[in-house]
Parts: sequence; structure tokens; C-alpha cells
Amino acid sequence: MNMDETIRGRRSIRKFRKEEIADSLVHEILDLARHAPSSMNGQPWHFIVVREKETKKRLVEIKNRHCPIEKQAYRADFLLGASVIVVVCVDKRESYDREIENGLLAAANILLGAHARGLGSVYMSAHKADEPAVAEEIRQALRIPEHMDPISLLPLGRPAERPEPKEMKPLKEIISHEFFGRE
Amino acid sequence: MNMDETIRGRRSIRKFRKEEIADSLVHEILDLARHAPSSMNGQPWHFIVVREKETKKRLVEIKNRHCPIEKQAYRADFLLGASVIVVVCVDKRESYDREIENGLLAAANILLGAHARGLGSVYMSAHKADEPAVAEEIRQALRIPEHMDPISLLPLGRPAERPEPKEMKPLKEIISHEFFGRE
Repeated sequence: MNMDETIRGRRSIRKFRKEEIADSLVHEILDLARHAPSSMNGQPWHFIVVREKETKKRLVEIKNRHCPIEKQAYRADFLLGASVIVVVCVDKRESYDREIENGLLAAANILLGAHARGLGSVYMSAHKADEPAVAEEIRQALRIPEHMDPISLLPLGRPAERPEPKEMKPLKEIISHEFFGRE
Repeated sequence: MNMDETIRGRRSIRKFRKEEIADSLVHEILDLARHAPSSMNGQPWHFIVVREKETKKRLVEIKNRHCPIEKQAYRADFLLGASVIVVVCVDKRESYDREIENGLLAAANILLGAHARGLGSVYMSAHKADEPAVAEEIRQALRIPEHMDPISLLPLGRPAERPEPKEMKPLKEIISHEFFGRE
């Protein structure tokens, strides 16, 4: 798929068909993930491919328990409907104080790589700087060692919804030249 | 350009030809940036397109002054050679405690959108959670209001280097199934 079309056509998907996604397809997408840039080329990523219902339930329970009131419309239950949840982790020993940045750049490739293959996903955080309990509980649930930080939870599945086109802010309003606020 | 090829072919570029990049091309790339996902669809992004040498110099000076010893090989002087520096900012009022995540997802689209158009870039952070002075000084240099956080500095220019293919960790080593460390 063309790059611009992939970026423009990607939407957040939370409803999935009951269809298993083969490991080979997941690995293709993770191959793209590791092509992301990383601080000092540390390539600090590790990806956990979660498929079992019990494991998914634990992740959902952790996410929901820490879900703030204003985000209750975005509870995590839908993760149970995804064939796979990819957990993006970053090795703190190889990420030079840039765990979140490194994790996000790989996650972005996963979202795009999934969409280019007809799969749906949505960005979910596994990490909150001011609430370390989220990452800590996910770490325990997935037996992630201390030196790794889980950064993102990315479900993968065949979309069972087709979101309406998104209204976007006009480009003019969100671009300044040279200094903030200068057209 | 094909999505997979764009992701696989993108490399971090720090040497640029002396060639101005037209605003129309920059805006095309920023149009892709705003198609990134955002927390609760807040679309909190603002992009500042820096072209003047004096402004670039201030950004370089700030980045270099805060550059840690272990990253001295990656000083920011090369930014002066880029036609444009895009500063990705995020409105804290619309990003639901997810400033860095929202900024990074837009930045990833800029890196890919640039490469798909034959331009080079490299990810540079404008933000460090435990060192707020970096963002604060960039904010002052670019007259960014208090409610906005600068997240990334992304140079854009025609590449004047062609980095060697990158050695990557084997996929097998960086993927686990179900739990960390399980093949």
C-alpha cells in the first residue's frame, strides 16, 4: 500500500472479527517495527505477542483499574476481541533515557504496518510517568524483567468496524512559521 | 512510495544539500502528521516551521548545552545545514496527559512522509521529563505559549549522505510469545 494512503486511511479500531492472525503476519509487522529509529541506534525493543485469553484478561483488568474518569469511554475491554495484543517493551539499558520515544517510534510502525495489511489496531499506553503502578503490574503479568519498560499495548485483528471519516483541524490553524503564532 | 519500503528504507540523515525545501512540500508532510492518532482524538498538535539561521542557531545552542556526555557524538550543529526544522508541539489542554505519545506519533509520520518524498530527517527530542529546562528554553526561543510543550525537533532537507545498511538484531531475539522470554 502507498505510504500516504496508509497514513491517511489508518483509523483507530476497537472492534475485531473473530479471526486469528497468523504469527507470520505478526512477525512481518514486527520486522517493520524494528526499522524505527532509536536513540544512538540502541534498538532497545522487545515485543511480546499475547494470544491467550487469560493473559489478555489480566491486561484489561490492569488498564481498566487505572483508567481515569475522563477516559471511561475508552475502557480496555475490547482488547479481549483482538486476535493478538502486541506489547512493545524497551530495554532501559539500551535506550539512553528515551524509553517512551523509542517505544513510540516502533509502535507507530506497527499501527501503519497493520493497516497496510488490512488489520486494525489502536494505540494504548502501558506506561504513565506519574503512575508507575501501571507498567509495574503489566511487567508482573507478562514476566517482564526489571530492566525492561512496557510502553504500549497494541491489539491486532481484522476490523469489524469502519469509523466515519475524522474531522480534522484546518492545517492553517496548526502551522506557524519561524515563531509560534506567525502565519 | 510503498509503505513497507518507506519504513525499511528510512535512515537518520544529518547531512543535507544546500537546497531549500518549499513550504508546499513541508505542508504536505505536516498534513500527514495530523493524521496520526491522538488521545481521545484531541489532535493537540502545532507545528513550527523554522527557516531562519538565527533561530536555528538558538535551537542548536540549547540542544548542545543540554547534551549529555555519552551523546556528544550526536551534537546538534548539523541542524544548521537543514533547510527547515519542524518543531512538533503538543497542546497540554488537549492531550490528556499524553503529550509525548501524541507528539511522537505525529513525528513518526513526518519522518516517513519526508523519506517518501526523497527528504532526510532525524528524530531529535525537544523534551526531557527530568530536565524541564530544555523544553522551557525552546519554548522561549520560539515564543511557544505555556500551554504547549515542544516535543520534537525534526530537520528536513535533501540528503547529502547515504548511510550504510544498518545491522539489526535478529527478529527471533526480540520477540517473545505470551510471556517475556518464551519463544
